[in-house]
Amino acid sequence: MTPCKFKLVIAYDGAGYAGWQAQRDGLGVQEVVEEALKKMFPGVGRIHGAGRTDTGVHAQGMVAHVEVPREQFRMTLRKLPLAINAHLPDTVRVLKATRCPTKFHARFDATGKQYRYFVWNHTVLNPLWRHQCWHVPRPVNFSAMQQAAQCFVGTHDFKSFAGQRPYQMRSTLRTVYRFDLRRSGPLLTFIFEGDGFLYKMCRNLAGTVVQIGLGKHTPESVRDMLQAKDRRAGGMTAPAKGLVLWKVYYR
Amino acid sequence: MTPCKFKLVIAYDGAGYAGWQAQRDGLGVQEVVEEALKKMFPGVGRIHGAGRTDTGVHAQGMVAHVEVPREQFRMTLRKLPLAINAHLPDTVRVLKATRCPTKFHARFDATGKQYRYFVWNHTVLNPLWRHQCWHVPRPVNFSAMQQAAQCFVGTHDFKSFAGQRPYQMRSTLRTVYRFDLRRSGPLLTFIFEGDGFLYKMCRNLAGTVVQIGLGKHTPESVRDMLQAKDRRAGGMTAPAKGLVLWKVYYR
Repeated sequence: MTPCKFKLVIAYDGAGYAGWQAQRDGLGVQEVVEEALKKMFPGVGRIHGAGRTDTGVHAQGMVAHVEVPREQFRMTLRKLPLAINAHLPDTVRVLKATRCPTKFHARFDATGKQYRYFVWNHTVLNPLWRHQCWHVPRPVNFSAMQQAAQCFVGTHDFKSFAGQRPYQMRSTLRTVYRFDLRRSGPLLTFIFEGDGFLYKMCRNLAGTVVQIGLGKHTPESVRDMLQAKDRRAGGMTAPAKGLVLWKVYYR
Repeated sequence: MTPCKFKLVIAYDGAGYAGWQAQRDGLGVQEVVEEALKKMFPGVGRIHGAGRTDTGVHAQGMVAHVEVPREQFRMTLRKLPLAINAHLPDTVRVLKATRCPTKFHARFDATGKQYRYFVWNHTVLNPLWRHQCWHVPRPVNFSAMQQAAQCFVGTHDFKSFAGQRPYQMRSTLRTVYRFDLRRSGPLLTFIFEGDGFLYKMCRNLAGTVVQIGLGKHTPESVRDMLQAKDRRAGGMTAPAKGLVLWKVYYR
């Protein structure tokens, strides 16, 4: 009997987690969801996410797939998210569950992702936003930031903006479809869309663009940074708590 | 020597506080700010807020006034918020400090207030909004809610929507200038503006309007509720964590 395969859309507050994937030094959201599923379906398989998120990074729309033995699945699909959520801490929530084809893979089938980064640009950090923003107290040159952001759009080798990973990355070539900046009072929102993002890439782009806003680099220097293909040439890494995996795209 | 008088705009995450004013059973934001001020200005007077907020209610724009002995005030006005914030927990922040006339009074001079109430209307509560929303999982009739909200606008006796207080209230007549409802995906925002609000009034209006959205009452029943002038006739009290004191208005 083929198992039932589900696509889950998951949101989480990353504050208490070592990212999506379990680390030696902390709890991953993935294992929290797996533990919840195991309580309901003892024969459940591993849960596969669309990608990793770093320690402290949040998600509004992580996508994952999981297989449940058909004979153990005895509820309506509509009830599934609520049933899983009953076994989860309130920092993690399954927003949606749908059946998916046996060959669906949350990571390999993803055609793109949207991340959002939030900056609080005011001398004082609003206490209601303190867990979900990077506090940048000095005023920024917003149009310089917008100009810089546009230089990242397109297909580039993002090696200068890739964090060090213990293993070798195959390619650092990525396509950024969109890098929009919005301002609403003190709140700046960066919207990144791309076919994929390297380790810490969003945080490195956000950090670099903010440094440009503060006059530490010029918008024109982005091209040189990209061309250097050296992490030391890229700008700073923005803090994890400002980043949210917003959406994963599939065909 | 007349003291220096300041008008402070204060934001706070109400989660850990027994409201603005100190209670027998918990810490008030007022005393937290007073303690911070005392460390800087030993002769500081009491701090007077524009009004109270209940236990667990947040603020983006509480206004308060305070007097500091002139000889103890030895910094620029621009530095004052940052200096106070250095003595505050990150759940409370002075956003702005301005000099004000000796006769200014944060409560008596206030001409109106704006509160906002946030509802998460989806089967699953988003973990990133869990501290600042009332979770209403069942779908609501939004246009019925908008219709109901309009019935509250104007000058009415809001006795049916006033919480019980240990002391006698002088008058329960209040003018609501505005009660707008906005919807953005699962997030509903209620915007209340009025010359003043009775104890728990915003939460009682929010609770009633949500009950109307859920079909527990009709929009037409609002008039009867108001006319009854009896708390038992009004709808339910919405949870504190969804409410934010947004702004205080002065002439």
